[in-house]
Amino acid sequence: MAHSEHRSDDALPVESTPTTSAVALAVSTVIFALRSDGEGGGASLRLPLVRRIREPFEGEWALPGGPISAHEGLAAAAGRNLLSTTGLTPTYLEQLYAFGDTDRSPGERVVSIVYWALVRPDQADRATVGDNVRWFAADELPRLAFDHNEIVDYALWRLRTKMEYSRIAHAFLGETFTLAELRQVHEAVLQRELDPANFRRQMESSHAVVPTGERLTGGRHRPPRLYRYNDSAPLIDNGPLTSA
Amino acid sequence: MAHSEHRSDDALPVESTPTTSAVALAVSTVIFALRSDGEGGGASLRLPLVRRIREPFEGEWALPGGPISAHEGLAAAAGRNLLSTTGLTPTYLEQLYAFGDTDRSPGERVVSIVYWALVRPDQADRATVGDNVRWFAADELPRLAFDHNEIVDYALWRLRTKMEYSRIAHAFLGETFTLAELRQVHEAVLQRELDPANFRRQMESSHAVVPTGERLTGGRHRPPRLYRYNDSAPLIDNGPLTSA
Repeated sequence: MAHSEHRSDDALPVESTPTTSAVALAVSTVIFALRSDGEGGGASLRLPLVRRIREPFEGEWALPGGPISAHEGLAAAAGRNLLSTTGLTPTYLEQLYAFGDTDRSPGERVVSIVYWALVRPDQADRATVGDNVRWFAADELPRLAFDHNEIVDYALWRLRTKMEYSRIAHAFLGETFTLAELRQVHEAVLQRELDPANFRRQMESSHAVVPTGERLTGGRHRPPRLYRYNDSAPLIDNGPLTSA
Repeated sequence: MAHSEHRSDDALPVESTPTTSAVALAVSTVIFALRSDGEGGGASLRLPLVRRIREPFEGEWALPGGPISAHEGLAAAAGRNLLSTTGLTPTYLEQLYAFGDTDRSPGERVVSIVYWALVRPDQADRATVGDNVRWFAADELPRLAFDHNEIVDYALWRLRTKMEYSRIAHAFLGETFTLAELRQVHEAVLQRELDPANFRRQMESSHAVVPTGERLTGGRHRPPRLYRYNDSAPLIDNGPLTSA
């Protein structure tokens, strides 16, 4: 029986055989921020990409990433990607998925463990941008190097799913926010306009956010209420969050 | 500015630098099955482990796993783990997480991409078991090699979360099943007894399952109804399912 023979060799955990394999390991990071569109006060979901200066895919845009060193954790490597690309630290960082199709990089086998990160708009506006880094609107990406379009699509799907079931929008906002600000985050992520009255009803009935009792300061006659996320509602998926 | 210098070297995707790193890559698989407890017809959640025949952790139990070859996909490697350990193919296979703490394997750096798999009870009963393989109850594990207890804990958490929000219990059952069979799966996974009447109400009100109109065949006066999962209800998280 073929698989019986097979088992005795292959079922052993690899940790016993520290062979140098022909498979390279990388960590890449999808960095999302809300950035203002310039005029009108609208905001859109944007991410920084890095222009490749080597083959394969020389001159094309790719997610920031790189190899990890023997003494660096996976989340630490993702944080380093973010810092080196934007000068920022994330308000949210989570492992997305390990991408390892055999044909994703021409001429070599690379497995990329991908993280996704969120940064707040006020941070994003302070981001440093190097010569080979540019921010793109998430819904207007060019054809990217490797399978990076597919990776961004999956990161967007995860962000949208998390937005519906958890407090992830929080990472784009401060501790307190108005319902209009929260709606703007949802609109930018979902890439469609939401009816303000429906959104308010939905948020209030879900108990996802609670009024703080305070209002936005400012010169207005009746400034909008401030809300915060309801900490007593359970998060759906934190994962075994690795500390960076 | 330190991070500006940093960026120009490190922000480049690693795929441009196929250096042989000191970081080894492995794929391991957590294999869950419901297996009967022998007497009384109860079932418990069990998983096969492999006894290590080498240092580190020689003689201790570990998840089945191993290195991947340059031409093997990640999910294919996980399927191979399963086949070589149990002789089975999975009814459900999903990437769980990449574990990469720097101190998880003594004397070397190993990043393990972990999958989890479900097999049906009738399959599990046909599993081949080699000399170094043994099935353990999920709630009675010994101290495992490496960080494998932590990995199993996280896989259990993911299984329980999926059970509540999706049709994952299906992978333990056939196309149709009685509510008693479905409750038994939930009880084994959640490791607590559920009130039959409450469970019935909860399943019926959630519309997660629908009656097929048929009943279990057998000699009983009033055989129980058969149900199936409601395909029109959305799954919460499929991930970018890689084909094995």
